[in-house]
Amino acid sequence: MPTKGRGFYPVTDPVQNEVRRSGLTHGVAVLHLQHTSASLLIQENADPDVRVDLERFFERLVPDGDPRFTHTTEGADDMPAHVRTALTAVNLSIPFAHGRLALGVWQGIYLWEHRTRPHQRRMILHLMGE
Amino acid sequence: MPTKGRGFYPVTDPVQNEVRRSGLTHGVAVLHLQHTSASLLIQENADPDVRVDLERFFERLVPDGDPRFTHTTEGADDMPAHVRTALTAVNLSIPFAHGRLALGVWQGIYLWEHRTRPHQRRMILHLMGE
Amino acid sequence: MPTKGRGFYPVTDPVQNEVRRSGLTHGVAVLHLQHTSASLLIQENADPDVRVDLERFFERLVPDGDPRFTHTTEGADDMPAHVRTALTAVNLSIPFAHGRLALGVWQGIYLWEHRTRPHQRRMILHLMGE
Repeated sequence: MPTKGRGFYPVTDPVQNEVRRSGLTHGVAVLHLQHTSASLLIQENADPDVRVDLERFFERLVPDGDPRFTHTTEGADDMPAHVRTALTAVNLSIPFAHGRLALGVWQGIYLWEHRTRPHQRRMILHLMGE
Repeated sequence: MPTKGRGFYPVTDPVQNEVRRSGLTHGVAVLHLQHTSASLLIQENADPDVRVDLERFFERLVPDGDPRFTHTTEGADDMPAHVRTALTAVNLSIPFAHGRLALGVWQGIYLWEHRTRPHQRRMILHLMGE
Repeated sequence: MPTKGRGFYPVTDPVQNEVRRSGLTHGVAVLHLQHTSASLLIQENADPDVRVDLERFFERLVPDGDPRFTHTTEGADDMPAHVRTALTAVNLSIPFAHGRLALGVWQGIYLWEHRTRPHQRRMILHLMGE
């Protein structure tokens, strides 16, 4: 999937649709993002300020252009993107029941792009169950 | 399950009991917490000072009442609880064998409540195996 | 597996070999590290500077010998190792297809030792699939 640069991209609906399409009713959806500079995150899906504040917090915690980083091949946001990914996750395992992901009412699944420029990202979904 | 506010609540025993009750001997226990302001954490189950120090570290890293946060609807600990959750995890996949969770001797599973006030938290357990 | 102290130890190949040996073609590899002071991390497998910078970042974020830690039984790196583990992960779920782990081209799986002295670490691998 394409991203337009740093930020949160909702993926709950496509994952839920795949679960429905599979015909499985009870099991686990395993999501794996094939990258080291973007994450998968479960976070609040209501107030968008939560995502704004998350972004700001991580920008302070892992500043772009920090002179102490040596891996800067692709620019000031290169190494910070790797650190943010290490601090979060690239795979998730979410149970589903009666054909629906067992997410809480406030939980959404997001692809969190850490690079400032647009990227093409690839997420693998493996469903197990019956 | 109810929490009495910020802190660690052991959940290893209830999870282990469910594995036993299921009659499955080999497989994976998938735990999913349906919230965005509390985490699931595997940490040392011996010296309680580890959990005291973890709590202190996270209170310094993500200070309550930080004026840079804008999502403060539910108080000074609202946004810090979301950040702490993003920095840790809400789902875990733990193998079991011979009916026992394959945890290390020092590993315990905890629900980590990040909100200061008591909350009711819901954890989904899905068992796969034979 | 033995570690020679703090640093990254690649485990992609042994995990891939177990998948191949199992004869399973499609499924999920669940990895669980039985410790609370070392992590499992998926990170870039190309430029080693990424791992050097990750190590440096975490050494600044969670300084060894921080006087605010009380759990110092095993030395200045004891509690920092627990915090680093809490900030990362001890279990991963990685899909595989056609007998190959569905990792991105730049993704490698690492055991990240957080203690400064050599340790013996135990990782459980559970394969599910067909």
